[in-house]
Amino acid sequence: MSFNTFGHLFRVTTFGESHGVAIGCVVDGCPPQIPLVADDIQRDLDRRRPGQSRFTTQRQEPDQVKILSGVMEHPDTGVQVTTGTPIGLLIENADQRSKDYSDIKDKFRPGHADYTYDAKYGLRDYRGGGRSSARETAMRVAAGAIARKIVAGVTVRGALVQVGPHAIDRDRWDWSEVGNNPFFCPDKTTAEFWEGYLDGVRKSGSSIGAVIEIVAEGVPAGLGAPIYGKLDADLASALMSINAVKGVEIGAGFAAAEKSGEENADEMRMGNQGPAFLSNNAGGILGGISTGQPVVARFAVKPTSSILTPRKTIDRKGADTEIMTKGRHDPCVGIRAVPVGEAMVACVLADHFLRHRGQVG
Amino acid sequence: MSFNTFGHLFRVTTFGESHGVAIGCVVDGCPPQIPLVADDIQRDLDRRRPGQSRFTTQRQEPDQVKILSGVMEHPDTGVQVTTGTPIGLLIENADQRSKDYSDIKDKFRPGHADYTYDAKYGLRDYRGGGRSSARETAMRVAAGAIARKIVAGVTVRGALVQVGPHAIDRDRWDWSEVGNNPFFCPDKTTAEFWEGYLDGVRKSGSSIGAVIEIVAEGVPAGLGAPIYGKLDADLASALMSINAVKGVEIGAGFAAAEKSGEENADEMRMGNQGPAFLSNNAGGILGGISTGQPVVARFAVKPTSSILTPRKTIDRKGADTEIMTKGRHDPCVGIRAVPVGEAMVACVLADHFLRHRGQVG
Amino acid sequence: MSFNTFGHLFRVTTFGESHGVAIGCVVDGCPPQIPLVADDIQRDLDRRRPGQSRFTTQRQEPDQVKILSGVMEHPDTGVQVTTGTPIGLLIENADQRSKDYSDIKDKFRPGHADYTYDAKYGLRDYRGGGRSSARETAMRVAAGAIARKIVAGVTVRGALVQVGPHAIDRDRWDWSEVGNNPFFCPDKTTAEFWEGYLDGVRKSGSSIGAVIEIVAEGVPAGLGAPIYGKLDADLASALMSINAVKGVEIGAGFAAAEKSGEENADEMRMGNQGPAFLSNNAGGILGGISTGQPVVARFAVKPTSSILTPRKTIDRKGADTEIMTKGRHDPCVGIRAVPVGEAMVACVLADHFLRHRGQVG
Amino acid sequence: MSFNTFGHLFRVTTFGESHGVAIGCVVDGCPPQIPLVADDIQRDLDRRRPGQSRFTTQRQEPDQVKILSGVMEHPDTGVQVTTGTPIGLLIENADQRSKDYSDIKDKFRPGHADYTYDAKYGLRDYRGGGRSSARETAMRVAAGAIARKIVAGVTVRGALVQVGPHAIDRDRWDWSEVGNNPFFCPDKTTAEFWEGYLDGVRKSGSSIGAVIEIVAEGVPAGLGAPIYGKLDADLASALMSINAVKGVEIGAGFAAAEKSGEENADEMRMGNQGPAFLSNNAGGILGGISTGQPVVARFAVKPTSSILTPRKTIDRKGADTEIMTKGRHDPCVGIRAVPVGEAMVACVLADHFLRHRGQVG
Repeated sequence: MSFNTFGHLFRVTTFGESHGVAIGCVVDGCPPQIPLVADDIQRDLDRRRPGQSRFTTQRQEPDQVKILSGVMEHPDTGVQVTTGTPIGLLIENADQRSKDYSDIKDKFRPGHADYTYDAKYGLRDYRGGGRSSARETAMRVAAGAIARKIVAGVTVRGALVQVGPHAIDRDRWDWSEVGNNPFFCPDKTTAEFWEGYLDGVRKSGSSIGAVIEIVAEGVPAGLGAPIYGKLDADLASALMSINAVKGVEIGAGFAAAEKSGEENADEMRMGNQGPAFLSNNAGGILGGISTGQPVVARFAVKPTSSILTPRKTIDRKGADTEIMTKGRHDPCVGIRAVPVGEAMVACVLADHFLRHRGQVG
Repeated sequence: MSFNTFGHLFRVTTFGESHGVAIGCVVDGCPPQIPLVADDIQRDLDRRRPGQSRFTTQRQEPDQVKILSGVMEHPDTGVQVTTGTPIGLLIENADQRSKDYSDIKDKFRPGHADYTYDAKYGLRDYRGGGRSSARETAMRVAAGAIARKIVAGVTVRGALVQVGPHAIDRDRWDWSEVGNNPFFCPDKTTAEFWEGYLDGVRKSGSSIGAVIEIVAEGVPAGLGAPIYGKLDADLASALMSINAVKGVEIGAGFAAAEKSGEENADEMRMGNQGPAFLSNNAGGILGGISTGQPVVARFAVKPTSSILTPRKTIDRKGADTEIMTKGRHDPCVGIRAVPVGEAMVACVLADHFLRHRGQVG
Repeated sequence: MSFNTFGHLFRVTTFGESHGVAIGCVVDGCPPQIPLVADDIQRDLDRRRPGQSRFTTQRQEPDQVKILSGVMEHPDTGVQVTTGTPIGLLIENADQRSKDYSDIKDKFRPGHADYTYDAKYGLRDYRGGGRSSARETAMRVAAGAIARKIVAGVTVRGALVQVGPHAIDRDRWDWSEVGNNPFFCPDKTTAEFWEGYLDGVRKSGSSIGAVIEIVAEGVPAGLGAPIYGKLDADLASALMSINAVKGVEIGAGFAAAEKSGEENADEMRMGNQGPAFLSNNAGGILGGISTGQPVVARFAVKPTSSILTPRKTIDRKGADTEIMTKGRHDPCVGIRAVPVGEAMVACVLADHFLRHRGQVG
Repeated sequence: MSFNTFGHLFRVTTFGESHGVAIGCVVDGCPPQIPLVADDIQRDLDRRRPGQSRFTTQRQEPDQVKILSGVMEHPDTGVQVTTGTPIGLLIENADQRSKDYSDIKDKFRPGHADYTYDAKYGLRDYRGGGRSSARETAMRVAAGAIARKIVAGVTVRGALVQVGPHAIDRDRWDWSEVGNNPFFCPDKTTAEFWEGYLDGVRKSGSSIGAVIEIVAEGVPAGLGAPIYGKLDADLASALMSINAVKGVEIGAGFAAAEKSGEENADEMRMGNQGPAFLSNNAGGILGGISTGQPVVARFAVKPTSSILTPRKTIDRKGADTEIMTKGRHDPCVGIRAVPVGEAMVACVLADHFLRHRGQVG
């Protein structure tokens, strides 16, 4: 990852601000001849789109993606496919609500990037958070939709597994429930509980953190590379780069700190379809290389600091002041982080799939 | 990070296996005219060196580093300084105990990279873990010693804060205690408890996980960059790339998932020395850019799977078997991960310091 | 340079095909607070724009650039400036003449990238050359306009110095003439001669090669870096990456092969404004690092193979056939390569300026 | 290329100075299971080694390479093969003639990197040229020997084709002659002429430039990638990065500037083994992608400025002075550039082979 680009062979570069003309990205390195139309991408974008329930920001963005380059109808089949050249994607910003930014123009919202952008660059785009807005994550989801097509045998799915102190019951995990509630929650009972809980958070003008889990099934053994090309290291930066993320773990994660060697190491037996592991504390990765088991990553999202309670802060001139954020925001930004997390994992896997094929054939 | 190199302007490339002739690294991009002699590096290496207490592997390695290039006596001052060209570092492997590897040559140790290296490359260097050995981390520490000199105003310190289920009492945190016990523990009382606890682990031939915390004080506001150049994203991959690490968090980390917006966002007030924060849940980073507060990162290390208890596994031919590791190993690899974590944080900060200076001046 | 991105700190990623919806680029790493409006870029684009004389392609493209991101009005001054975040640029394709491509759809034009794209990807975008079209160079010019602002004290100018066998007389070199003829020729007399010469080439449906020279004045000593970060190595790849370029040279270039050590090495004397060189065979670069003298690079452009004469070729199915290109093309593509060459040199200098500042301060 | 590393998937990082302890490199990304012993590398190094005739520097360096990592005996075959992990290579400097450097310590040799290193870094390693010495090219040759094994079906050969104004007669080109004279000259008659010519140059304490041609046969069509991943762009930077190189051309090169479209474009016919070209003005590359024809690159090397004639220069304090270089040097550094050029072309091809396999499979 470097600046506004990530990936080594499957490379994604994004640009755009929350309230600018448009956001976009360039997906470089995609293999040729992969069928790709805008709808393939739109499907994933629609899952991330704001304004779909009362638990996410009410900003209305159709997030209609346009493919500007890198595809054409195959001369033989007529099917639109990738050409191997960079795929330019664009989403025009629609609902840039014309509003008065005087409240926040000169004040730093605590917990936001306002102060740090200003400290770094000497100015910041205060309109809707500018570049630091979660709006940028739409392009990650778009790139992820293409990445999924590269690792076609891999299923990357995500779920919200904790909201505030309320975690799901993993024994009730049912992937088919994820689409049945506004939280991407795999546990029906917990989803119902969250509904009431988050209504309370929302009505009080507060916000709450969350934990998301991403599972990639069908990843072949051998993806990743030693030392600074580790699959888990790339997953860690990919997930940590998502807005508001403060922690990332693989497999048993922080719980591994409490385990003994006997408990933690996943024993092996020869199975019908090759080597099989008797557990998956490793989260599908050993020595930075995939084991063939499901790759399991979790990340923690902090609560948005756009809340109704007035908070102490300073302004650009250095004077003490208070701030209260009235805009349209998410009571739990962790919800919409689920498809974003999936996308990042898909992109990392696609990159490592190509890298592995490059080195090992 | 890519393959065996990390960093963008301050770039570290390592090579070498546990039981090969030597391990080494190339540190590229170091500013010129920084005083540097081997002793500056040796000091940090000595903190990581194995065999210093009964709680780390008994392998005896003097780990004597040689500077092969990139330094010379300054023509005016006579002081040995960096020249701006790549610094080649080498440590010859001394105690490659000539042993019989037949036990593990053809078997995959559960929880190790044995199986994944073999799955990826079709073979693996079984001698002492080959490239996947923690021995490689000596070069990280060496590079980190140089990085510290680049960000001379920054103090990077680490501590072991949890061993198995036993965390320190943060109210007793005293940095001056870290050097007084074999665990880099900042809490004297807990260190004494760990001594007995880890003796038990060691004598039973078992192992245990741990959590390490790294704190960088004096980091100016403005290091890091938006989106895929985030300081925390680079810290995440840098720390996750350390052997046995399964989780990384910044500031409040996973605990942020349980917080409300009111609790989590660090309020600001104008202080005598510029903007001041009333708390540091952010761990010194907002929007991927340093705030000027201490940068705080934690990472979880799994227990080594080199234990005396026989474990189920398979061999290279695919037959079920059992394995027991008799070699010299660490009951808690987390201990020696402390200086390694410090080094990785120092390297990331040095890289971002140079990157920031490049873009913003 | 890698794939569709070049630069290390000043990074340009382009996308788009000749006859797609749009072409665009992302300029990443630009320092903040640099005044930038679309007109700054448009000025340079207009110099490259096709259809400005009978000696370039008659395709009519207004090439109107839009800035999609990375700029805003400075909160204090109201002047539109860069924010330090990626600058997205877009040019919609206007004159995608709806034509019948059946002539070339299945045939490989000799001397074009038709065959190689097909060999690599299994298909190619035959519409106007697709990604291999010189249309992509508009984005280089746009990026170059931004680069010029980063190295504000540097003047980067280019000139056509040879068309076919007809070189200019260097004693008549007058930069002020470059804008007075359709060839960017600094020698008025030769420009007049070329006019007749190129009319002949054009009318016969043929084409001819050319040599372009780029001179960057005001480059401070010290830009560039040893071994694989050499300023001239980066100039070489930057210029060689321009469509149709087959050779690049710095300073005396290939003529240096015929020189003796006495003739070639530029002697030095202390001047009023620091070290002065008595000649500039080095082209302003020694050991890959700028000397402070003008940086001088030349590159050779082959004649376009889009000519009216039927040529032997094969088709996609592997059958022998003939082809004749009837489209709108440039009799001498070298002409429009002048602003493109300037842009690439400006981009490389901007990148090295930031890199130098990063490492050395 | 960036700083002291080049390549994207096949990555080479070098370090070391002319008169330091050792020079070395790390070759990262090599596919596993390729047979490799030190002798495979030594063979190529011996071709570059100084002191083999009176036409190259008389410095005596055995240049004995050691493989420090990245290889092991295959557990099944016992053959030493690459493991896929980084290959560390080291050559200890033997003949660092203990000499008095006071002549050049404070003076800048015209035409050398002395002044520019000092201008950039504020100091320079004056001992034998330090990092700017051609000694570094030994590591390129070593890396190239490994690269050749990756593109095993490709033959990369080089020849000296011009010394001063004296070019070979291409009709007499005979590859088998290259090893029969001390110049890597493929034209026996010209080699004999050069012998007398260069004796004159040598005896007069002067030096002379040269042109080298590298031909890679057996390169499959499809290597390289559009726009900034062009094979020829990477060749250009790779060759331009070699010490003393001032120009690079591909195929017809600068001569293409004088050609018409009819003359230049290589016509095609279907041959027995696939598409065949009727000429090779393209030098095996169109649109940055290999055509399947031999890849042909040429580069010009300037004369070394280490000559016996006193030259005007300045010293570190800025005073005018004169300098004469008495050390051991090459009358024609172009000679030893032949194996270096071969190595760079081999490395670029290996990198693009892996990159192509990564993207396209």
